[in-house]
This record gives sequence, C-alpha cells and structure tokens, in this order.
Amino acid sequence: MDFKFSEKVSHLQASAIREILKHCADPTVISFAAGSPAPEALPSKQLEEISKEILAEEPSVALQYGVTEGYTPLRDEVKKILAKRGVYDPEYDDVVITSGAQQANELSAKVLCNEGDVLLAEAPSFIGSLNAFKSYHVDLQGVTLEDDGINTDELEEKLKAGGVKLVYLIPNFQNPTGKTTSWEKRVKIFELCKKYGAVILEDNPYGDLRFAGEDIKSIKTLDTDGSVIYSGTFSKILAPGIRVGYVCAHKDIIQKIVVCKQVADVHSTMWSQMLAYRFLKKYDLDEHLVNLRKVYKHKTELMLSEIEKNFSSKITFTRPQGGLFIWCTLPEGVTTQQMLDFCTVAVRDHKVAIVPGTAFEINDTDETRSFRLNFSTPTDEAIVKGIGILGKLSKEMFGE
Amino acid sequence: MDFKFSEKVSHLQASAIREILKHCADPTVISFAAGSPAPEALPSKQLEEISKEILAEEPSVALQYGVTEGYTPLRDEVKKILAKRGVYDPEYDDVVITSGAQQANELSAKVLCNEGDVLLAEAPSFIGSLNAFKSYHVDLQGVTLEDDGINTDELEEKLKAGGVKLVYLIPNFQNPTGKTTSWEKRVKIFELCKKYGAVILEDNPYGDLRFAGEDIKSIKTLDTDGSVIYSGTFSKILAPGIRVGYVCAHKDIIQKIVVCKQVADVHSTMWSQMLAYRFLKKYDLDEHLVNLRKVYKHKTELMLSEIEKNFSSKITFTRPQGGLFIWCTLPEGVTTQQMLDFCTVAVRDHKVAIVPGTAFEINDTDETRSFRLNFSTPTDEAIVKGIGILGKLSKEMFGE
Repeated sequence: MDFKFSEKVSHLQASAIREILKHCADPTVISFAAGSPAPEALPSKQLEEISKEILAEEPSVALQYGVTEGYTPLRDEVKKILAKRGVYDPEYDDVVITSGAQQANELSAKVLCNEGDVLLAEAPSFIGSLNAFKSYHVDLQGVTLEDDGINTDELEEKLKAGGVKLVYLIPNFQNPTGKTTSWEKRVKIFELCKKYGAVILEDNPYGDLRFAGEDIKSIKTLDTDGSVIYSGTFSKILAPGIRVGYVCAHKDIIQKIVVCKQVADVHSTMWSQMLAYRFLKKYDLDEHLVNLRKVYKHKTELMLSEIEKNFSSKITFTRPQGGLFIWCTLPEGVTTQQMLDFCTVAVRDHKVAIVPGTAFEINDTDETRSFRLNFSTPTDEAIVKGIGILGKLSKEMFGE
Repeated sequence: MDFKFSEKVSHLQASAIREILKHCADPTVISFAAGSPAPEALPSKQLEEISKEILAEEPSVALQYGVTEGYTPLRDEVKKILAKRGVYDPEYDDVVITSGAQQANELSAKVLCNEGDVLLAEAPSFIGSLNAFKSYHVDLQGVTLEDDGINTDELEEKLKAGGVKLVYLIPNFQNPTGKTTSWEKRVKIFELCKKYGAVILEDNPYGDLRFAGEDIKSIKTLDTDGSVIYSGTFSKILAPGIRVGYVCAHKDIIQKIVVCKQVADVHSTMWSQMLAYRFLKKYDLDEHLVNLRKVYKHKTELMLSEIEKNFSSKITFTRPQGGLFIWCTLPEGVTTQQMLDFCTVAVRDHKVAIVPGTAFEINDTDETRSFRLNFSTPTDEAIVKGIGILGKLSKEMFGE
C-alpha cells in the first residue's frame, strides 16, 4: 500500500543522535555522543531498595491505573521543591507529572501552537524539542545563541514581526552548547516576551547539575501571571529510564496539558512516580546533588584539560559550569561538510563517537562547524583515550 | 495572561470517565465506572519477584535511556506472539513498544491524519481514542455499531464520500458496548476499506479476555500489504500501571510512529518493558490467561444474573463474551437528559457510579439512552449490592 503520511510528520527524520547511539552498541567505540547521566552517579542501590518497598507495600497502587495529573504525593513534593526555588506560585500555577521533560515540552507546543504559528528557539538547540515542535508543523525559527544567552536584538526583531506563540529556552548549561543565559538577559528576554505577548517555555533539565559558579534564578521566578511554562525532569538526577519529568505552568495551561496527556499515554508509569517520590522522602536531595556535582565537576575538568592538551589549538570550546556537554567549534573557514567528515572519520576509522552540530540546527540546511562532546557517560580512561584520538585527528585535519 | 490555545485542543474536555473516577475516591461509593482489570487477576506476586530480579541483575538497563523502538527482547517476544496469531508478517510488518495502547492509537492518527481528514469510528466508541483523534483536529465521524459490528452500508457510504484516512475499530468486546464484530463483517469491512484506500486501525485491548464463544481472527490477519494497523496492550493481562502496549503495522508506518514516539516520550519506561518481557519468559502466558478468564467469566455471569433479577424489565443489555463491560439501554422514549439524571441520582444519592453513554458518543450533541457497567473492578459483594441498588432505582424511574 502507498501511504500518505500527514504533512506534519512526512518531513520528520529520526534524531541523528539516537541513530549514532545505536552504532555505539559496538563496545569498542568510545562514545562522547550520549546525553545520559554518569552511570556512577545513579543511585542504583537506593532505587533498588525503594522499588522493593513499593511492590511489597503498595502493589495495587503501582500496578493499577493512576490519575493523569500524576501520583499526588509526588506532585506535592515537586510543588514544594519548585516553590522553594520561586518557580511555583500556588496562586495561579499548577504542576503535572510527565513522561520525561520531553513530554512536557511536546505537550506545551501542542496546546499552544496551531500549524504555522511561529516558535522561536535558541540556535542551536536540543534536537528532541526541535523535532517535537516540528511535528506540529509550526514555523520554527532560531535566534542566535551567544555566550550569555540569545541575542536579544534579534529576539525583539522576530517578536515584532508577529505571530510568535512560544519562545523555547534552555537557560542553564544548554544542550548542545553548555552555555548559560545571564540574569540580565533572562530579565530582558522575559520583558520582551511579555511586551509582545509570547509565552516562554523554560526547559531546565540540567539546572541541578551546577558544579561551578553561582546559581542564576529561573526566568519563571519573574513570572506574575503565567506567561512562563517551566519544565524539569528526574532523568539527570535520578534515572532517565524511569521517564519522570514535570511541567509547572498557569492552571489554565496545565488543564489543557492534562487533557492532551490523557490522550497521549493516560498517565506516566506509576512505579516510576512512586520511586521518585519515595527517593525524595527517604533521602536528602541536596546531599545527593552535592555528590552528583562532584562526579560531574571531575569529569568536565578532566575532559577540558585533555582538550587543552590534545586538540588543535585552532579549535575553540565552551567551559560549562554544569550540565553534560562541551561544544567545540572548528577553525574559521571549515565548512559544514568538513565538520561532518571529521565526525564520520572519528567514529568510522577511530571508533570515537561525537555528534555533529548539524543535529542541533533549526533547519537542515543551516551551516555549522561545531560538534558536541558529552563528558558524563564515558569513564575517565575513555575520556583520556578518546580525546587523545580526537586531538590527533584534529591536528591532522586542521593543523597544530 | 489571556491564553490563546491551539484550535485542536481548545474544544477538548477531560474524559468524563476519569472525572467520575476521581469522585470514586470516596470508599463508600460502589464503582461500576472504571475500566481497570480485576485486582485479583493481576499477577502481583510474580511481578514483585521479577521486579526484584531486574533491579538486582540489570539495574543499568532498567535505569538508563533505552531505544525508542522498545526494549529489544520484549519487541521480539511480542512479534513471536503476534506471528503465531497471524497478525505480524515479518515480510512487511514491524512492531514498536508504546506507552499503553493509548499511545499506539494516538500516534497512528498523528502520522496519518492532517487536520480535516475524515476518521471513522464505531458509534459509540472508546472516549480515550476519540479524544486522541480530536486532538489532531480531524473530521471524526461515527458509523452505527450493531450487535455484530458496524453497519457496513453506512461504512461504504462514508467511504464513498471520500477523504477517509483511518477507520478505527475495537472488534473484540468493544468498549463501551462489549459487542464483538463477526468474521463476516470483519472481511466485509476489510474489503471496503481496501477498495476505498482507507487504513484500518484495529485496537485489540480485550482480545485475550474471551471467556465464552469461539475466538474470531483479527482483521489484521487478512492484511497482505500493510493496510491494517494493529494495537495491543499488557494493561489488561498484566497491569495497566506499567503502561506497556504495542503497535504492529507496515514498516513504513512504524518508522513514522517511531519518530513521533521519540518526540513524545523518547521511550517507554525500561523497567515496565523488562517486567513484561521477563513475565513472558518465566511464566506460561496461556496458563495465566486461563486463570484470568475464569475470574472474568465469574464476574460477568454474576453481574448479568443480578441485572436479570433486579433491573426494570424494560432495560436491555448486552451479553459480552469477554472484556470488561456491559452496555445497558434504557426503555425507548427515555431522553438523554433522563439517562443522565439516572446516572447522577445513582452516584449522588445512592453511591453507585456508572458512566453515562454520552461519554462515548462521537459528538457531544449525539442522543443516547445507554450507560456502561464495568464488572471487573468491583468485588462480588459490591456487584450484588450495587446492581440491587441500580435495579431498585431503575424500577422507580422507568417502571417494573
């Protein structure tokens, strides 16, 4: 049969990263391509204990249907945490548990955007979200991401042009760049969006993973009437495989998100939600985060020092204060094709996997000479060996 | 802030059933409103054991990211089961694990339907699917459901009118009616859809729960080129709270569903998928189903005999050969409002919850004098007591 797919999905391709990850099944490949939390940072033993308790004590809650809004005790805990951070205002906000922050971002776009509405995102940005937005056939446009956040002149220009429904941002340790938006720019962005009536979707999967510098408050803390949607996740601090995230937004928006979540998956896995809840009750989250940050600080510093020692001096790179990623940029004049060749040769001939910058561009045709490195998943040995290999290759291809 | 929601969601309301379920939190309410499997039929002890093994033996698989297509060992097991039933053809079909059959049905509509495309469904049908379709702003139309399946003349008329992308059917023990489509009608429906180029979405959540009569083959067994999408779930045979379903369709369709699932929730909970896989490997599914069917057979027969003893003789009702539901119809002449009053009085004044037929209509304005009873969730005592109460009320309102 000759299938006619809907226009909104016919142009969608599977994420290049997840395709690369599949090839990483080869155990001899050193992968800097993933976005997974450090395996040694997952509280496996604690989660194993808690899981046992759940199935021994509350099997029927874990196994039967739950409500779409999420497991109430977990929702309440998330509200408490977010209230402490100034992100949740009980006056007008509500919270719903989602199947990862991925679902939170996808449903936010679904409830707000008609086909053709303009949605702005940092350029480059997280491919999972970009594809989610594209799957609703919006007019997705990029705003250049600078070292301290998006270019606000460009933002205003695009807002002025009209039709902007949503502005999607990852202000902390952005994926893929590792960049953090300054407080000054957060305020400016908030004011501009407010002025032009656009809703901000603030995605904060990495905020808890700051290992250097000072915390910067969320854009959502500036919100007084629900013009910011805030999404978060337990994927990076507990375990991604449990698929538990959340979204905090104005009650009216949450109500629509709940209806859309109901038709998407009825509710998130009960066991996963109970696991997250019991972890928060039984253990000290702050203490857990202190330990996590130590692991991430060590890995970043190791990768950065190996880059300095080994990479062609013409390659520039970001120095993230948290998160999972370093963004490297090949020398000026290098074409997109040369960058892609570098990535291909690295994985094919030298068994080191990295993600080409093209994966994070707003449009398939956008030029880029950057690539993304992940430091959380590989071991110390793999970091030293893999960066050494990439360094040698970079000098061969781009000079000392 | 004054939110402008997308047109596709602005008309969507939360499912009436799930709203009713919330009120059922009152432990003194006898609920015939749910669609949950019988608590005593859940293999809780086995799942508790298996869960322990998963977290002791493969914690990193359970806790880290997985691939969007689903946990490979489970996918392979599902393919084996479906191949044995003639539903999966390795030549052109593929299978992806979904977060419940709900996600399978939602994504099928997303990949095939543009806004305004015609989608046909049995009238009445499962509200969760109807709302999923509506959330993509399709032109949803009903085809009258008779005792042996939809009226095929009406189907042909609608197919002839053009623009039909998808025909959604629950051929076994349909929700909400408990009706089963005959083999003759399955063949006829398949041929008509084939002739007019519409894809069939065959949803089979209850097929394994047949406790009377002979199995009827799936419509998908007639398929030779991928014109039928088949969805199923572990919700009714293992546990709904784990959110594990699957969809089997032509490879081209599956490829698009995978891309859409990737942006929806990245992948389904790993633990849930591993739980289903290990259950299938460790236990004899057929033996488990024999036990399940005993429970369901007993409960249906009990509820039917209590209905016969207690209900106003003017009420008609279906006699399902499987599944979870009995569909009752008030005497001719009773208006939709009187039916709604009956349901309201039942839960408010007599603490027995049932779902009004309006919840399952294609359009909010469609008339109906039916209501749905679920027999799987309540205890035997609750069935006897609750049906007694409804019977007394029915006689008061509609005569002996």
